[in-house]
Amino acid sequence: MNVSVIAVGTELLLGQIINTNLATIGRALAEAGLDTYRQVVVGDNLARLAEAIDEALQDADAVIMTGGIGPTQDDITREAICAATGLGMAYSSEYAAHLEGWWASRGREMPETNYKQAEHPEGAVLIPNAKGTAPGLDLTVGDKRLFAMPGVPVEMKEMLAGHVIPALVAREGGEAAVLKSRLLRSYGLSESRVAELLADLFEAQSNPTVAFLASAGEIKVRLTAKAPTDDAADALIAPLEAEVRSRLQSVFGADDDTIEQIIFDGLAARGWSIGTAESATGGMIIARLTSVPGASNYVRGSVVAYATGVKQALLGVSDEAIEDGVVSEATALAMADGGRAALGADVVVAVTGSAGPDPQEQDVGTMVVAVATPERSQARTFRMPGDRERVRTYTTTAALHLVRLALADEWW
Amino acid sequence: MNVSVIAVGTELLLGQIINTNLATIGRALAEAGLDTYRQVVVGDNLARLAEAIDEALQDADAVIMTGGIGPTQDDITREAICAATGLGMAYSSEYAAHLEGWWASRGREMPETNYKQAEHPEGAVLIPNAKGTAPGLDLTVGDKRLFAMPGVPVEMKEMLAGHVIPALVAREGGEAAVLKSRLLRSYGLSESRVAELLADLFEAQSNPTVAFLASAGEIKVRLTAKAPTDDAADALIAPLEAEVRSRLQSVFGADDDTIEQIIFDGLAARGWSIGTAESATGGMIIARLTSVPGASNYVRGSVVAYATGVKQALLGVSDEAIEDGVVSEATALAMADGGRAALGADVVVAVTGSAGPDPQEQDVGTMVVAVATPERSQARTFRMPGDRERVRTYTTTAALHLVRLALADEWW
Repeated sequence: MNVSVIAVGTELLLGQIINTNLATIGRALAEAGLDTYRQVVVGDNLARLAEAIDEALQDADAVIMTGGIGPTQDDITREAICAATGLGMAYSSEYAAHLEGWWASRGREMPETNYKQAEHPEGAVLIPNAKGTAPGLDLTVGDKRLFAMPGVPVEMKEMLAGHVIPALVAREGGEAAVLKSRLLRSYGLSESRVAELLADLFEAQSNPTVAFLASAGEIKVRLTAKAPTDDAADALIAPLEAEVRSRLQSVFGADDDTIEQIIFDGLAARGWSIGTAESATGGMIIARLTSVPGASNYVRGSVVAYATGVKQALLGVSDEAIEDGVVSEATALAMADGGRAALGADVVVAVTGSAGPDPQEQDVGTMVVAVATPERSQARTFRMPGDRERVRTYTTTAALHLVRLALADEWW
Repeated sequence: MNVSVIAVGTELLLGQIINTNLATIGRALAEAGLDTYRQVVVGDNLARLAEAIDEALQDADAVIMTGGIGPTQDDITREAICAATGLGMAYSSEYAAHLEGWWASRGREMPETNYKQAEHPEGAVLIPNAKGTAPGLDLTVGDKRLFAMPGVPVEMKEMLAGHVIPALVAREGGEAAVLKSRLLRSYGLSESRVAELLADLFEAQSNPTVAFLASAGEIKVRLTAKAPTDDAADALIAPLEAEVRSRLQSVFGADDDTIEQIIFDGLAARGWSIGTAESATGGMIIARLTSVPGASNYVRGSVVAYATGVKQALLGVSDEAIEDGVVSEATALAMADGGRAALGADVVVAVTGSAGPDPQEQDVGTMVVAVATPERSQARTFRMPGDRERVRTYTTTAALHLVRLALADEWW
């Protein structure tokens, strides 16, 4: 089943609000195994909104609208539905009484404008709003189905999960299908290289479907299968997962196995603690490690040694190492070793580099990472493209992956 | 002039990404005095995308597209433009050479698929991409204008501000109107309180227009005036700025006066350096300070003392302070003073607290910030609502603002 989504509101077109409803609805439809045909954002303009509703009813099997059903003059969704479908406007005395009761129970008089919320296109079923006063609308138009929900995310979400998605799934009929996703996390390949290696799978887009998403050096590949049962979905995913893993050779985790979680699991297995010694990344690695709940079981802390004097005073980096270059493998290794002593941490990852915009000793983008464990220490030099923010972000991800490799005894 | 916006990407329809580009483009058009006709989100489907382009070219005077111009099979924006307009596909050997150079300068071989980025509908002008490899497209179709930009927000923003908006404003023709914005930065009021204090100004939306945006505790109010000359725009903005400043009583900076920049200016005036001593924020404050180019002129570094033992060993926090509570003003002050000594920094801001999800000594959200300067030191306890990420982010902003107040000798 194809579903078109229409979000209504001039404030959305003006960018005064970021539209999270579209993502929420898109995700809910995908998880229910329903296809989104198109998402449209229209301002509070009767003619344009009616036109968008008309088009959506032609294109798709069902239409989901959010916004424009409040009590003000701006709220024109009801009128636009009537204009697009030729239906007349009806009035629910029952809902008007419900509204009066809602206001009375709060000891306030109902503003006259709010009676507008009892209006609805003829034949529409009013969907109760557990979190506000505007009812949703559920309307059958020929062989199509149209829903209108409030724009306030918390009200919309409740109505979406409680009424709209179940109604669409029931309409699909047949046996309830299970939709199951598997997220494969890979590191070390560029986005375009992943696209090349999986080209035929992207082309096919059968069952399971394949999607991918790049974020700061990691690539996530999502396999989504639709099947009558959970086991049947797993059976569809398993061979494709094996194929993707074998082609990419760089999948390090699946689903909730974030790089931080894999590091913590590796530390737990050895009974080790971790810390960082950061210059160019300026605390970004330790900030990421400590963003995870329960980090205090593994994380000792960090020395962010931005000034050379701090590298010497707190990390004990020697004059010789500094002379070799502040941005050098010798200095990174000295920082990592010094960090282990200063922080009392078993594993320390250290970073020194030239993040830009002005070069420091080395060209902008030259970043050196070292990892020291109780067993061994080793450094690696990267040349990161892009601006200061990109260099720092990608180096943070790279440093975490070197820690993962060190903990797995797969030194580079 | 009416502009339609098309965002391309199945990942958007599936809700895997929240579409911030639509808001960014909507805001930029509104500030330039251009109307958004409609925003449409379409998946990576050639027929549906071509249909959306065709409709948008009929409805609006100009079309702005984002996404789908990367090097992979998913990237079908170029093909869809050709399908919708009947134009053939051309190839720029010049741009292909530029791409080869980009990869060569990074010491890597260019994947074959990337040559696709040198393709473009006949007659399109390639817009240089300062932050990536995919060029934008600028195409005249009959009496309409069509732009295609990358979907990556940082690449898109640069192209939007540098090329697309100026091209549309120039196309509007007539006397060159100046569009001038003033960004007022405020701290300490909630979003709803700002909305209340400025309600009539938001309603009016005349010239200048008023918009606002909340981010992690700061509220930005943007005033945008349209006038024949720069001076005339300034003259329109000045009285409204005075009015907003007087109503909010919490504007700390304007335009490029970020909190980081104001702190650096304050340090420069006194010839002081800065560092941080962080527990619950885990390096987020130092990461923010070092994100600014030129930070090395002021920043010494940080001790991220996540484990209590590190607070004692590197910051010299005494047993008495710890006994008073790890999450206490005594400990925060001891961390700040100890940080000054350890880092050789004139000013140190320290944070200890209970970020959650499990409480540490104090209720989740209890966060203590201390600032120490050569002249004075003082602490303040906050109760931050929300989850771990929100608590850490808002505390980071709060800590930076206490540093600002201390440098201005406006201790709390």
